[in-house]
Amino acid sequence: MKIAEKIDDMRKLRRRLTEPVGFVPTMGYLHEGHLSLVRKARTENPSAVVSIFVNPMQFGPQEDFVSYPRNTQHDLALLDKAGTDLVFIPQADEVYPQPFSARVEIGKVTERLEGTARPGHFRGVTTVCAKLFNIIQPQRAYFGQKDAQQAIVIKKMVTDLNMNIEIVTLPTVREPDGLALSSRNTYLNPHERQAAVVLYQALSLAQQLYANGEKNAERLRQEIIGLIQQQPLANVDYVSIANAETLDELDTVKPPALVSLAVKIGRTRLIDNIVI
Amino acid sequence: MKIAEKIDDMRKLRRRLTEPVGFVPTMGYLHEGHLSLVRKARTENPSAVVSIFVNPMQFGPQEDFVSYPRNTQHDLALLDKAGTDLVFIPQADEVYPQPFSARVEIGKVTERLEGTARPGHFRGVTTVCAKLFNIIQPQRAYFGQKDAQQAIVIKKMVTDLNMNIEIVTLPTVREPDGLALSSRNTYLNPHERQAAVVLYQALSLAQQLYANGEKNAERLRQEIIGLIQQQPLANVDYVSIANAETLDELDTVKPPALVSLAVKIGRTRLIDNIVI
Repeated sequence: MKIAEKIDDMRKLRRRLTEPVGFVPTMGYLHEGHLSLVRKARTENPSAVVSIFVNPMQFGPQEDFVSYPRNTQHDLALLDKAGTDLVFIPQADEVYPQPFSARVEIGKVTERLEGTARPGHFRGVTTVCAKLFNIIQPQRAYFGQKDAQQAIVIKKMVTDLNMNIEIVTLPTVREPDGLALSSRNTYLNPHERQAAVVLYQALSLAQQLYANGEKNAERLRQEIIGLIQQQPLANVDYVSIANAETLDELDTVKPPALVSLAVKIGRTRLIDNIVI
Repeated sequence: MKIAEKIDDMRKLRRRLTEPVGFVPTMGYLHEGHLSLVRKARTENPSAVVSIFVNPMQFGPQEDFVSYPRNTQHDLALLDKAGTDLVFIPQADEVYPQPFSARVEIGKVTERLEGTARPGHFRGVTTVCAKLFNIIQPQRAYFGQKDAQQAIVIKKMVTDLNMNIEIVTLPTVREPDGLALSSRNTYLNPHERQAAVVLYQALSLAQQLYANGEKNAERLRQEIIGLIQQQPLANVDYVSIANAETLDELDTVKPPALVSLAVKIGRTRLIDNIVI
């Protein structure tokens, strides 16, 4: 496994890889969700490239950029074991040499859900992904369904800007009790960790009610909110039932619909979703 | 010479070209300025690709998108003669299938001069160039110094977004009396055509005054404006003396400085510039 910290080195090492190249962009502190993406990239392509970069541009000023968990040596060992060919692990001033002023804006699908809760977040995600795609020039890039809106936004960027990349989305990986894997789960104390299962329980309830015939989106939202409010450590940020492509909120559930939510468990903000 | 109207066809034909590929994006109605770019692309690369696309996104609502001159058959004959390998000539709905919402924003260098006079213009230029670069995947792209700010903006986009393309800028091609070639010169009636030489005369005056020791930018601006105001058909839009990379306005001229201006001759808005 090769490792590059500089863009020029990365381009040189990339040129030697057998195409097609599968690429997994990450912020590190890797878990089984990331590794499922890497293994898929490895299976579907002769070459697998992973980036580890905690991207300051996608964090708001009040958010957890500084405290975001990092464990590079452990990450590299996991990536090596998963069959990664090349890792890009740049410093912030390599990615954003000053003065830096470009932005990739995707519009409507970035202006709701996480985009409303985290202004500027998706501008940071799309700008860094455009840069990484240009540096790494993958044929395929892999994203987790856990960050459903992110995958939708990236697909829209690729479509609108004619990037010649296939975006592959893979299922959310969960703990045995249903909690979606997230690097931020490390923020949870044992009580919060137990409480955090309420996100998946609420999504499962919605799925079950829908399967039993409930098509009214507002009633489903209220059922989800009601369940979460029974958990004293939980505070709902948003609950959405939206068209899974346009993210327009629905009155009547019509598949494929994205049921997504953001909930604070103590001071930790978690997101999860299902598609029905 | 091959011609493609669809993106898929373009990608297929592009794959067959010998690399490196030189690319010249145009809005058609080609003149010797465009052809100098095509010939350079042809000389520096085994393959030369040209696009012809009057890009609606870079025109303001009150601007000349509808009346912009078009002459495709003549353009294709000129391109064939200049040694073009492949021409991309898409319709607007091929480039912007609805719903289309992505934008590439470059920030500061787009917010002055033409960016102030034509809000949204550079957003249209950079978005379409990002798309064309992704479709055509050239190793080099060629722009004319006549649109100096455009070349600066495109270079900034390529740098900030790590596009793996060399941007080549070639000198402005002029008529014998000094008027910079522009597709918009066709709007001028014979009186206006005579009057239009005042842009180049004003730039030449500034260059001469600078050579004679005048380093005060404001005095140079006033001399330029004074000369243009002697021409009754001319109305100054702006006169700028700025750092040729950052476009920050200068108090004291220090090379390389971009002396640029926009002047209306009758109803036709023309731009020109020199670097001192």
